[in-house]
Amino acid sequence: MSAIEDLTAELARLPGIGRKTAMRLTYHLLKQPAEQSHRLASALVVLAERVHPCPRCFNLTEAELCSICADPRRDLSVICAVEEASDIGAIERSGEYRGAYHVLGGRLSPLDGVTASELTVAQLHDRVASGGVREVIVATNPSVEGEATAVFLQQLLAGFSVRVTRIARGLPVGGDLEYADGVTIAQALVARRDM
Amino acid sequence: MSAIEDLTAELARLPGIGRKTAMRLTYHLLKQPAEQSHRLASALVVLAERVHPCPRCFNLTEAELCSICADPRRDLSVICAVEEASDIGAIERSGEYRGAYHVLGGRLSPLDGVTASELTVAQLHDRVASGGVREVIVATNPSVEGEATAVFLQQLLAGFSVRVTRIARGLPVGGDLEYADGVTIAQALVARRDM
Repeated sequence: MSAIEDLTAELARLPGIGRKTAMRLTYHLLKQPAEQSHRLASALVVLAERVHPCPRCFNLTEAELCSICADPRRDLSVICAVEEASDIGAIERSGEYRGAYHVLGGRLSPLDGVTASELTVAQLHDRVASGGVREVIVATNPSVEGEATAVFLQQLLAGFSVRVTRIARGLPVGGDLEYADGVTIAQALVARRDM
Repeated sequence: MSAIEDLTAELARLPGIGRKTAMRLTYHLLKQPAEQSHRLASALVVLAERVHPCPRCFNLTEAELCSICADPRRDLSVICAVEEASDIGAIERSGEYRGAYHVLGGRLSPLDGVTASELTVAQLHDRVASGGVREVIVATNPSVEGEATAVFLQQLLAGFSVRVTRIARGLPVGGDLEYADGVTIAQALVARRDM
């Protein structure tokens, strides 16, 4: 039964989906109207054909510029550097940020063979060099590689009169001191502010 | 960014895939060559267009008869009734069975509105009535509804000179008595055999 096996194999290539889950999804689709499989298929094709990185900030877009770069109300003098395009959604949902973005395409990780040339670091350098930027907020993840990438960007941009900042680390809102790890508590203490 | 949102929404319709997982899968696909999305899309279309239930046993097939019904080496005088087509794979993998199947399309569950007319019970009746069948093995799941369906099938076929059997319940091979539930142990005791 090759059609069932083909779809199962394709679904099992996705991260977090094993053979059994793929099989279950396939049989689920077989029980739905054919229309649902067709809609999923066409969403995949549209995604593969139309979505591409924004030439300025590397956010994903179907238009020439991404919706944020094309928005005249955004403050283009502030650039928030993130690891992945998916991180932009998380920051946008906070409602706190009105500047532009720069998607690095990952973080420095020499052990995985990810060096600066793999990332869009040179393009960030060029954006800052072309002027008009007063601040770069480095919003890479608070992991070892994310921190290393942040330090790298700080050094890269040291020659420009641009403020390079790092998003704050501390206790998550709604978190519980009792369950926070020691490193986070230490960071929260170091970064304490007057009330 | 509607292409990303469209695919995320379609993926999130699948069972066990929430919005966040759907988003992660979408971004994963965006990082892969477009070819992968195209292959997944065409596997979906092929599935939706070509796969249909076997007219005899309701197993899923792309051919006129399913691969089991079309296999001359199978013993068509024994019919194993299962709830779903996906159960056939599990039984085939055991390597223990060389008869035919009958996919009921679910199990009796009056609370969920599933009555005998929703299932392929009448077609099973017709297969037995047309003769040549000596045994029907009821392999519905060992759940309350699966048992009720088994009893229903037994009564349905009581008028024919056909043996109606139920797959054995007991301790799973490799299982641990200490961790088995009481009902399973009780069934294993009742169904004990001489050594």
